[in-house]
Amino acid sequence: MRRSITGFSNPTVKALRALRDKKHRRQQGRFLAEGLRLLTDAREAGHLPELLVMASNREPHPLLAALEQAVEQAGGEIVETPPEILAKITAKDNPQAVIGMFAEFDTALGRLDPMSAPIWLVAQALRDPGNLGTMLRTGDAVGAGGLILIDDCADPFSAEAVRASMGALFTQSIAQAGWDEFRGWLRAAPGPAKSQLVAASLAADARPYRGASYAAPCFILVGNESRGLPPKFEAVCDLRVTLPMRGRADSLNAAVAAAVLAYEAAATLALGAVEHHPSDPGA
Amino acid sequence: MRRSITGFSNPTVKALRALRDKKHRRQQGRFLAEGLRLLTDAREAGHLPELLVMASNREPHPLLAALEQAVEQAGGEIVETPPEILAKITAKDNPQAVIGMFAEFDTALGRLDPMSAPIWLVAQALRDPGNLGTMLRTGDAVGAGGLILIDDCADPFSAEAVRASMGALFTQSIAQAGWDEFRGWLRAAPGPAKSQLVAASLAADARPYRGASYAAPCFILVGNESRGLPPKFEAVCDLRVTLPMRGRADSLNAAVAAAVLAYEAAATLALGAVEHHPSDPGA
Repeated sequence: MRRSITGFSNPTVKALRALRDKKHRRQQGRFLAEGLRLLTDAREAGHLPELLVMASNREPHPLLAALEQAVEQAGGEIVETPPEILAKITAKDNPQAVIGMFAEFDTALGRLDPMSAPIWLVAQALRDPGNLGTMLRTGDAVGAGGLILIDDCADPFSAEAVRASMGALFTQSIAQAGWDEFRGWLRAAPGPAKSQLVAASLAADARPYRGASYAAPCFILVGNESRGLPPKFEAVCDLRVTLPMRGRADSLNAAVAAAVLAYEAAATLALGAVEHHPSDPGA
Repeated sequence: MRRSITGFSNPTVKALRALRDKKHRRQQGRFLAEGLRLLTDAREAGHLPELLVMASNREPHPLLAALEQAVEQAGGEIVETPPEILAKITAKDNPQAVIGMFAEFDTALGRLDPMSAPIWLVAQALRDPGNLGTMLRTGDAVGAGGLILIDDCADPFSAEAVRASMGALFTQSIAQAGWDEFRGWLRAAPGPAKSQLVAASLAADARPYRGASYAAPCFILVGNESRGLPPKFEAVCDLRVTLPMRGRADSLNAAVAAAVLAYEAAATLALGAVEHHPSDPGA
């Protein structure tokens, strides 16, 4: 279906605007992604918007034509609207020429198989949607299976998280779970390998992050931006590692810490130095 | 000097509010930092605010008392004001109970000695103040000498950059320069060692980032968030390295890429594997 919207008070415009709020995203089960590049990444990863909104003054582009065609073939809706209305929907002075409305993904933890990837990223009470999106992007780069959000994290379907993920929202699995559910899932996995939970730590028994015995599947856990990881979370980790801090500060940005650890773990695992190392809960 | 401000239209309130804009920061040569933790980091690094603004409903705290005393002893001004006025100054619903106004630092490149640190971070046309602040924070952690901003970068004195730096704004040197000035400075340094300029690259001749011949002083260069590094910048680097990208995306967040490279370079240099390796401009 294809139509044109020219009125600011059009119900579709109102419904799309409302998706800026988490409450409405939850109620409608929908979220927005902005920009041709992001929507193309989504399409290539097999995700098409249910509704595609295009600025009436857009420049023609072969990727946009491909996107339009795919949305139409899938029975989606296409809307043309003046750039002022796109600006109102996105609350940006210079909105992208195209936005898509997607159905939110299933984020049940139970549908993920911990053995399906060598690395996973896990965030506990991560509050900054930019950090969340950046972790998704890093997860894609290191070949992670996905991002698991523990406790009250930022919303992965917020505009800022979607944007910061640079398309990785559509390629990485995302799950949301409480700590107890996560631990149960992690430990219940069948098969010969045991999952390894790893966190950066200042504890006395933590080992240097470089050369530590990372083992697949390796779950890299980072905590809240202000408070870090609660001690009880750190205590159950199979491996606690220290990152050298050579300056005055005692911590890194959460997404940066996750990336440095994930690249180190990925290198260790890829080098074949450690295929699987029995985890050592006491160490 | 100590006084109380209760009026929203007080000229000091107006002047402080204006510092949210880069134009006014430049004109006044002043910027704001918010929160007791940040201001304490600044104090410990030897930076005191010229003006300290405290909420009239603040909780007493020994670090706040120490800060007040230091500002008074240094001849600075102390202002008490209702939280509503602090909210107006910072444009936040829940402002921190204390903010400081600082004189902007000298960001002339010429005052930095490239030989004074083993690692430096360099950003070209970095537009996101959060990324900029995160790079400062990472620089502190890896023992970098500072952050050098090339071309039109985000303002390091913006509220978002200051906040993301988590105090590293006050411990890292910051310089702003054009590309030609930077190159001249980099190559003109006296002494036996030659500075090494390193960038992540997709070029065919790039070497794996892990195990590459990092050499002090090592300058880690990242480019703009959307466009990456211009080819002419990449071409003059002494070392081009690739980061494995195992997913669909072909790049990392700029601050993440800088951190992964900086930690790798720091580890190489600290291991003593490479004290100084003659750079190889053709490689």
